[in-house]
Amino acid sequence: MSIKTEVVNVAKKAKEAGTKLAKLGSETKNKALIGMADALLKERAKLQSENEKDLKLAREKGLSDAMIDRLTLSDNVIDSMAESLREVAALPDPVGEVLNMQRRPNGLLVGRQRIPLGVIGIIYESRPNVTADAAGLCIKSGNAVVLRGGSEAINSNIAIAKVLEKAGKTAGIEEGTIGLITTTDRKAIDEMLKLEELIDVIIPRGGEALIRRVVETSMIPVIKHYKGVCHIFVDESADFSMATEITINSKAQRPGVCNSLETLLVHKNIAKDFLPKVAAALKEAGVEIRGCSETKKIVPDATDATEDDWYEEYLDLILAVKVVDDIDSAITHIEKYGSLHTESIITTDYNNARTFLDDVNSSCVFVNASTRFSDGFELGLGAEIGISTTKLHAFGPMGLIELTTTKFIIFGDGQIRQ
Amino acid sequence: MSIKTEVVNVAKKAKEAGTKLAKLGSETKNKALIGMADALLKERAKLQSENEKDLKLAREKGLSDAMIDRLTLSDNVIDSMAESLREVAALPDPVGEVLNMQRRPNGLLVGRQRIPLGVIGIIYESRPNVTADAAGLCIKSGNAVVLRGGSEAINSNIAIAKVLEKAGKTAGIEEGTIGLITTTDRKAIDEMLKLEELIDVIIPRGGEALIRRVVETSMIPVIKHYKGVCHIFVDESADFSMATEITINSKAQRPGVCNSLETLLVHKNIAKDFLPKVAAALKEAGVEIRGCSETKKIVPDATDATEDDWYEEYLDLILAVKVVDDIDSAITHIEKYGSLHTESIITTDYNNARTFLDDVNSSCVFVNASTRFSDGFELGLGAEIGISTTKLHAFGPMGLIELTTTKFIIFGDGQIRQ
Repeated sequence: MSIKTEVVNVAKKAKEAGTKLAKLGSETKNKALIGMADALLKERAKLQSENEKDLKLAREKGLSDAMIDRLTLSDNVIDSMAESLREVAALPDPVGEVLNMQRRPNGLLVGRQRIPLGVIGIIYESRPNVTADAAGLCIKSGNAVVLRGGSEAINSNIAIAKVLEKAGKTAGIEEGTIGLITTTDRKAIDEMLKLEELIDVIIPRGGEALIRRVVETSMIPVIKHYKGVCHIFVDESADFSMATEITINSKAQRPGVCNSLETLLVHKNIAKDFLPKVAAALKEAGVEIRGCSETKKIVPDATDATEDDWYEEYLDLILAVKVVDDIDSAITHIEKYGSLHTESIITTDYNNARTFLDDVNSSCVFVNASTRFSDGFELGLGAEIGISTTKLHAFGPMGLIELTTTKFIIFGDGQIRQ
Repeated sequence: MSIKTEVVNVAKKAKEAGTKLAKLGSETKNKALIGMADALLKERAKLQSENEKDLKLAREKGLSDAMIDRLTLSDNVIDSMAESLREVAALPDPVGEVLNMQRRPNGLLVGRQRIPLGVIGIIYESRPNVTADAAGLCIKSGNAVVLRGGSEAINSNIAIAKVLEKAGKTAGIEEGTIGLITTTDRKAIDEMLKLEELIDVIIPRGGEALIRRVVETSMIPVIKHYKGVCHIFVDESADFSMATEITINSKAQRPGVCNSLETLLVHKNIAKDFLPKVAAALKEAGVEIRGCSETKKIVPDATDATEDDWYEEYLDLILAVKVVDDIDSAITHIEKYGSLHTESIITTDYNNARTFLDDVNSSCVFVNASTRFSDGFELGLGAEIGISTTKLHAFGPMGLIELTTTKFIIFGDGQIRQ
């Protein structure tokens, strides 16, 4: 079977299965999700033995420890895949809700009914748990899914998808709802991205290079973010200990994720007093500082920041630090170098808090809190399928609602247009 | 100046101007829109003399009467451009609204604030009034706009844009907010579609070929519909005179638009009684019938429908007619041949009305009303910038709200993540 045929077959089956899934009630979907959670735990040994095949190849290829860690289906990872499915089952079902019902002057009653998007395409890299997490969110929101994971996790992904499909079928979910592309040839992605009539949206999850390639190739709408160059601006009026604590949390609590801090902007009037304090705390947390010339005068340890540093998503224990004239300079810097992901101001000034909230148009804008809260669970969405920094359809963390759309439903009694 | 340089310059200016526009209050924007309406009327003679240049070239090129009609800036067209701008000024401003404000367990207060998309790219064909209509809707919703009209209307478009820009400037709208690409070379479209960092969304308006080309080329998200193959299903229980009146209105009131009827599906149990009645009314309205074999037995005048007819958007006084077994066959037909645009059921049966509303996933689903109501004004949006049959971001007619997105705003008091 050619690559194209395989991809088209998976997507066609998903589309058909999705049409049926869209009509299922919450009870069936929830029963399926709980059945899937149980099945993952029950089939733990099988999943781990398939995972071992991937790990063996990865070791032979000499993949880094970090990559092998991401690839491993440890007991913990399997437990948390099951737990996630249970949590998704417990969330409210967004499908079917009718919004904005209104009566028109001619008597037509017009509303918007929430419906699934149809088929979600997910393209992801090494973590095999995405297979279960994404499938769970898609099923809950009434969507079929076409999954295309990384080649290094192929045996694990096939095993997980098989367990999920079987458990889903028992609960009344059509075969094909969880479609997995099993060929590891990269051409499969190109074929997938042509299927405008079968797949409604593509959500790529992975490094910037993968995502750029998807955007360039896809005829299907893509929801994505390239990177998270997140900023904190410490205003003149900031409480120093709050500013320090939030900076350390934003940078060092988990530096490898997209909502961690990359650039700290400090108001010039407090730079002399604040920078030594925060620099000491950063040093203690093992963070290297790359500073502007003003910063370097105050923090002699800092290395020189180059122009490139302001664009950089380090994903590491490195922080760019810049002294700015005022809030307007801070906002101008964020507009120029930012990635529309997440920014936070630390201030006690009412007007500056309002200015920052209004004028910074990133997807998440905080006052006096860590950038690490930029996350679907933390912001109350109940779950997260990804994050968008394009403004179309969704902007910021995306939950179940973002996997749906609305159609107009109109109740008439014989109206014709004049 | 190269084509690329021109396009990039227009888009860059629009992005800068858009940042300022996003911060303006409704009063300034409304004043500008009313000033623009006044200016169009005041500069009527100038607009018409520039339009005459386009018309002269069109006549020399031998363009069809219909095309020349669409191109003409008659007194009526100019009056209605001005009137549209006034109506948009009177609509509520969507920008700034805060939705779903909620308190998280850790005290964070999380909401979603409505913001403009940024820069809207509009690619359109001959009608020069789109220049004013699109600019008005974009400005009201806080967006700058990059316009790329058809080459045959270039003198008219330049004249309109100049008048609008001057009037906008007087009211405090930055120059460059209404960006018009003046080169008529088609390569300008390709250059425009690469500017992912400058333009937030592309809305193409025109024929299917133009739109397909845009989707294939664009790196920027596109909101579009290819065509409107709209259906009416006349159920067994339908009131015949209502069904006839709605069919005639949907097909013949304005056959050249996307929400007009293209295929009539009739329940087999009433075909013998209903088809002769509706056929007579269609004949009187000058509509040609292309029927399935069952239809032809009952309506001998009908010509043979081929498989292609079920996919066809005639945009003309032609109607495809098919006898179907029941509501499920009707829905299956719509799923196979439809374009997700607009469908209507004529019925007096409660369960069938519900089934149709729930199971048909087109962007507009009607019970007992004309498909011609599938329109932003008619559905209560106050205005229409276009219609979407892709489910991402917007599905169905799009008004001002659809030209905005929301960002998360979060009020904290020192929260860090555990």
